[in-house]
Amino acid sequence: MTSRPKSGEFDLIARFFEPLSRAAPGAFALGNDGALLTPPEGASLVVTKDLMVAGVHYPEGEDPAILARRLLRVNLSDLAAMGAVARSYALGLALPADFDDAWVEAFAAGLARDQEAFGVALIGGDTVATAGPTVLSLTAFGTVAGDACLTRAGGRAGDDIYVSGTVGDATLGLRAVQGGLAALSPEDRGALAARFRLPEPRLALGAALVDIASCAIDVSDGLVADLGHLCAESGVAARIGVDAVPLSDAARRTLDGGEVEIADVVTGGDDYELLFCTPPSAREALDTLGHRLGLALTRIGAVEPGRGVTVVGADGQPLALGRTGYQHF
Amino acid sequence: MTSRPKSGEFDLIARFFEPLSRAAPGAFALGNDGALLTPPEGASLVVTKDLMVAGVHYPEGEDPAILARRLLRVNLSDLAAMGAVARSYALGLALPADFDDAWVEAFAAGLARDQEAFGVALIGGDTVATAGPTVLSLTAFGTVAGDACLTRAGGRAGDDIYVSGTVGDATLGLRAVQGGLAALSPEDRGALAARFRLPEPRLALGAALVDIASCAIDVSDGLVADLGHLCAESGVAARIGVDAVPLSDAARRTLDGGEVEIADVVTGGDDYELLFCTPPSAREALDTLGHRLGLALTRIGAVEPGRGVTVVGADGQPLALGRTGYQHF
Repeated sequence: MTSRPKSGEFDLIARFFEPLSRAAPGAFALGNDGALLTPPEGASLVVTKDLMVAGVHYPEGEDPAILARRLLRVNLSDLAAMGAVARSYALGLALPADFDDAWVEAFAAGLARDQEAFGVALIGGDTVATAGPTVLSLTAFGTVAGDACLTRAGGRAGDDIYVSGTVGDATLGLRAVQGGLAALSPEDRGALAARFRLPEPRLALGAALVDIASCAIDVSDGLVADLGHLCAESGVAARIGVDAVPLSDAARRTLDGGEVEIADVVTGGDDYELLFCTPPSAREALDTLGHRLGLALTRIGAVEPGRGVTVVGADGQPLALGRTGYQHF
Repeated sequence: MTSRPKSGEFDLIARFFEPLSRAAPGAFALGNDGALLTPPEGASLVVTKDLMVAGVHYPEGEDPAILARRLLRVNLSDLAAMGAVARSYALGLALPADFDDAWVEAFAAGLARDQEAFGVALIGGDTVATAGPTVLSLTAFGTVAGDACLTRAGGRAGDDIYVSGTVGDATLGLRAVQGGLAALSPEDRGALAARFRLPEPRLALGAALVDIASCAIDVSDGLVADLGHLCAESGVAARIGVDAVPLSDAARRTLDGGEVEIADVVTGGDDYELLFCTPPSAREALDTLGHRLGLALTRIGAVEPGRGVTVVGADGQPLALGRTGYQHF
């Protein structure tokens, strides 16, 4: 067996993680039992926690820098869905026996890059050994003024339903990463894979929606499943038109190629776009907001009284979907 | 293979975890992308995160209720070491393929019991599948007035060094749980095992020490290792007398039996007692505090200028310790 440099727990923290905490005085340079978070006066903290497991949420062997950035981004996306300003995060790493310093160094470099991009800092965590695959746990912290956060509850019959960006790229990207979708051009394959590997948390959009939207969620389980969550928490039904769902050119070409169906796109997860409801009076404000952010905000349907999600096909008839989205068990 | 009831991700949350969130309005009944934490006016949040892995931090097959309580308690112990009042926690579960509803139900029941004992509530989390052993991740939240928390830095030459309770029971208890220490009486075996399986977070002590102690840490890696952490962060040295280290009767009998040495006791981890430094002027206040809490607070040495930890044996000579404490790698 080749001997690779492999530091002890405390050396790993000192070499690779302590530098990530320097912008957060309450992190005590990771030399404490915990961190101190002092929200701005009058603000509340928003807290979210997402885990990622090698072989489940990402392919074994993924570039550790990409992995680190994805882990941070999926958590920041939850903050975005609540309209919070991202502030900091705590990190839990359960590492398998075959990790080495180079892996941790690249992982930390990925975090450093996205910390700068999103204005957050590491405030603490835990690094342990596991006999199984890598398990990554991240708890992200944001702030909102007062208690003014977006939630999944609050959608009302008559509201418009919007989604940001394009839908389905990530689930197609995952198939591409796994070696599927043989007919894809190299360009489309790269574009879709990038959407899976490095989602874009819609933080600016979320913060702007606090005063506009009646409810919001990020699309992680799948468009239909997450719309179902919104409906369940809001006590309403939703009807969306499949033709209105915004698709990227790459996704459109993949659909046209016949290797996937629209049902795969609207039930596939990991896009991390924001799905939200607004009163029709907000349409102009949303147009303006979309232009300001350089981000498509597409009206895909409406909230109705009742329960459940109906997806209407091009022929005006409800689509039969085999499943609504991702569940872990 | 016997078919056992095994719910989906969302059913697990609704059945077993949502009830644990009812005391926390900001948890949104776990039906949101994240939770809202509003600290009392003028307070700061203290945040800590500890992971536990099956087969590493606890034996495979451990009673899930005990496991849940231990996970919560080791995190609350970190809050205690910072002098915080415990408030809430977020939970991450990576579950192996062979989990079933009964396991999750028992795990949740353990949490429910200790939530009540310690006055905390579940505010969110994530439940995922893993191909490997169970990985548990918990992030605990407490509050302190202003920014008045205890840290590891602040110990000064001349300070006394104290530890609460007794030292070494947990490391002996772990050996007992693993089938070692053959000469133990059933009573001692049970008492020591209980100290490993269900540590007692010293929250009341920690909160009382905020105005008294110059620095504090909880004993998780081992008495000598954790004293080393205090010294490193405070920029001082420490000298403790091995005869002064408080031992339980069970630990004393185990030592007398010759199956372990005192070096094993002072370098063994998992006691979750508080180790802290105070100026000599605080001795009377600590006597009073110990009586009030019904908890032994034992002076075991003194802070000195310099670096490193010296453990002095009964003969007045420094002990040679093979190691100082636990490291994961």
